[in-house]
Amino acid sequence: MVVEILAVGTEILLGNIVNSNAQYLSRKCAALGFSVYHHSVVGDNENRMTDAIRCALDRSDIIILTGGLGPTEDDMTKEVCAKVMGFELAEDPHTRQRIEEYFKATGRKKVTSNNWKQAVVPVGARVLDNDNGTAPGLIMEKDGKTAVLLPGPPGELKPLFTEQVAPYLRSLQPEVIYSQMVKVCGIGESGAETMILDLIDAQTNPTIATYAKTGEVHLRVTAKAESEEQAKKLVKPVVKELKKRFGINIYSTDEEERLEDVVVRLLKKYGLTLTTAESMTGGMLAGRIINVPGASKCFQEGFITYSNKSKRKTLDVNKSTLKKYGAVSEQTAKEMAKGGVFATDSDICVAVTGFAGPEDTPEEPKGLVYIACYIKDQVFVKEFHFTGNRMKIREQTVVQALDLLRRCIIECYKNEK
Amino acid sequence: MVVEILAVGTEILLGNIVNSNAQYLSRKCAALGFSVYHHSVVGDNENRMTDAIRCALDRSDIIILTGGLGPTEDDMTKEVCAKVMGFELAEDPHTRQRIEEYFKATGRKKVTSNNWKQAVVPVGARVLDNDNGTAPGLIMEKDGKTAVLLPGPPGELKPLFTEQVAPYLRSLQPEVIYSQMVKVCGIGESGAETMILDLIDAQTNPTIATYAKTGEVHLRVTAKAESEEQAKKLVKPVVKELKKRFGINIYSTDEEERLEDVVVRLLKKYGLTLTTAESMTGGMLAGRIINVPGASKCFQEGFITYSNKSKRKTLDVNKSTLKKYGAVSEQTAKEMAKGGVFATDSDICVAVTGFAGPEDTPEEPKGLVYIACYIKDQVFVKEFHFTGNRMKIREQTVVQALDLLRRCIIECYKNEK
Repeated sequence: MVVEILAVGTEILLGNIVNSNAQYLSRKCAALGFSVYHHSVVGDNENRMTDAIRCALDRSDIIILTGGLGPTEDDMTKEVCAKVMGFELAEDPHTRQRIEEYFKATGRKKVTSNNWKQAVVPVGARVLDNDNGTAPGLIMEKDGKTAVLLPGPPGELKPLFTEQVAPYLRSLQPEVIYSQMVKVCGIGESGAETMILDLIDAQTNPTIATYAKTGEVHLRVTAKAESEEQAKKLVKPVVKELKKRFGINIYSTDEEERLEDVVVRLLKKYGLTLTTAESMTGGMLAGRIINVPGASKCFQEGFITYSNKSKRKTLDVNKSTLKKYGAVSEQTAKEMAKGGVFATDSDICVAVTGFAGPEDTPEEPKGLVYIACYIKDQVFVKEFHFTGNRMKIREQTVVQALDLLRRCIIECYKNEK
Repeated sequence: MVVEILAVGTEILLGNIVNSNAQYLSRKCAALGFSVYHHSVVGDNENRMTDAIRCALDRSDIIILTGGLGPTEDDMTKEVCAKVMGFELAEDPHTRQRIEEYFKATGRKKVTSNNWKQAVVPVGARVLDNDNGTAPGLIMEKDGKTAVLLPGPPGELKPLFTEQVAPYLRSLQPEVIYSQMVKVCGIGESGAETMILDLIDAQTNPTIATYAKTGEVHLRVTAKAESEEQAKKLVKPVVKELKKRFGINIYSTDEEERLEDVVVRLLKKYGLTLTTAESMTGGMLAGRIINVPGASKCFQEGFITYSNKSKRKTLDVNKSTLKKYGAVSEQTAKEMAKGGVFATDSDICVAVTGFAGPEDTPEEPKGLVYIACYIKDQVFVKEFHFTGNRMKIREQTVVQALDLLRRCIIECYKNEK
């Protein structure tokens, strides 16, 4: 079945915001086994919206409309869509009550009268309760065509989609789609594809799709079957084969788990504390770790040692090391990592030093980065040559530092429980 | 005149990438005075692309197509658009030569034969030389309609647009559009709008548009006139009035300058050094400052002091202060800032401490943040109550810390040259 995504919003057409809802919905629909052939964006204009909805209903089975469900006069997605599809509108007492409760819960005393516009729904439509706002989602079915209306703010759209729209869409599919994510770090996209070329070439059901992210490759294994159980059965041996081929390079098989989540999970598992000593990433590495809820249990302190002086004073890097090998060297990275552990009494320190540019000279080659990890009285160090601009080099460095940390913890603590 | 943006790419329909080109082009077209009523996305499929181009040419004056200009068989935007508009195709010797030179310059020895497909252009089209890739941009005009074709990679599309397409589009407009940006920090969007409601209500030419960003409001003043000189003359008094009303809350009138750029510019101007002492932002503040090229001159060291122990040891915060007032308090923030200056011999230290959540209790109210700035033997501190999730609270904190820094430097050094 073919799904089409139609966003309503002048702010998208003016370029004030990017249409990230379309990306989110496309990815979700693809994972559910639907084909998406068109995205469109139209403004808050009745004639153009009417044409756009007609055109979308004509060429697709299901249209998902986002935005334009608010309380102002400009918001007319529901009204226009109901008119095009031939639905009457009437106030829904249940929705009115929910809006009242929502305002009470959020402490708003005055409810302006235009808010009750959001309680009006097409007669016969399914109303999807919105826990994060006042505009409900709507599903309208007629003559074999379906329109799904969702509010524009991603904080409202996403929970409505996963909790109510996805199960509905799944029920329309004759087959069940099941997919499993395998997240790899430490191998490039083309390298990863080469490692599984035979699997990709031979695939029919399940299929393997690869997605490149900064420093990572995500592999999605998707199967179609008559039941979820059967689909899972098809996926399982392929995931097993991927685990065999990629081994420790796989950091997670959980859709939502990020690299920093894995690091914090491992630190907690073994009761370890961590510190960071950053030069060219300047706090970005610590920032990603600290963004994991509960990270404070294992991360107590970090250092941003940009100057040589601070590397010496705070991390006790030898003056002679800096002079002989330079601030960007294997030796300095190692001493930074060791110094971080000794300065804080942490179990582990990960240290980064490198050239992020924009300068690029033979003496200071842009993209040369050393990452060291001091753990269990040993120090591991890796050399990298990254490409891209200043920000890109720093992002890749952060990913590789997290990954080195992950590998070192697993390697050094795998025999402990 | 009406412009429509039509992106070609299966990767957008699958949700692998977000259609950021549409946002970029929309913003640019709006600034040039064009109306954008539709965005569309279509895959690499001849029939659907034909329909999409026909529909776009029918309802708009100018269509900008992005993507699908590469060397593979899938890439067919040029071929389909030429067919729809009735253009013949032929190899362009100039473009072929440029492709040869491009491969030579980038060190590629083998050029696969399909690359020469990119030298084939519609006869009569304007060819826009692409300095960052092998696919040239194209402008095709026929029967009062125009199609502009641009390669999909933003690194190729953006320079082609600013250097060649924007001047072309400007030449089609009977009037010149000139706009000036005014960037405000420290006032919310609705507060800023209230301050200029009379100006907004009275506006015809120039107009003032407001855009909310995390912790910031951007105001764009745009005028239309017969010449750029006249348009500038219209904009000038409005910008002057905004400067009068917003005063020090304006951090820049430069389109490209970010808050951290202003901070680094001010530090360099007065020859000052800075350190950071971060608790709940965990390195994000330092990370933003260090991302400014040349920041190393004024930023040498920073601290991430998450635990009370590290606040005491590294920043010399009094044990009794932490006990009496807690880690998230005005007093602790002040002592952190002072301690940062003394630990590093820097001229300035900005310190942040707060509750980012996800917990939210009466003892640890989520969103309560203190930011302190120690400068010229004085310490300034501000209390904030932010809303939103963990990441949002931390982002707002970083913006406000940069802004406090900016205000303190200006206030304390304004009489120095």
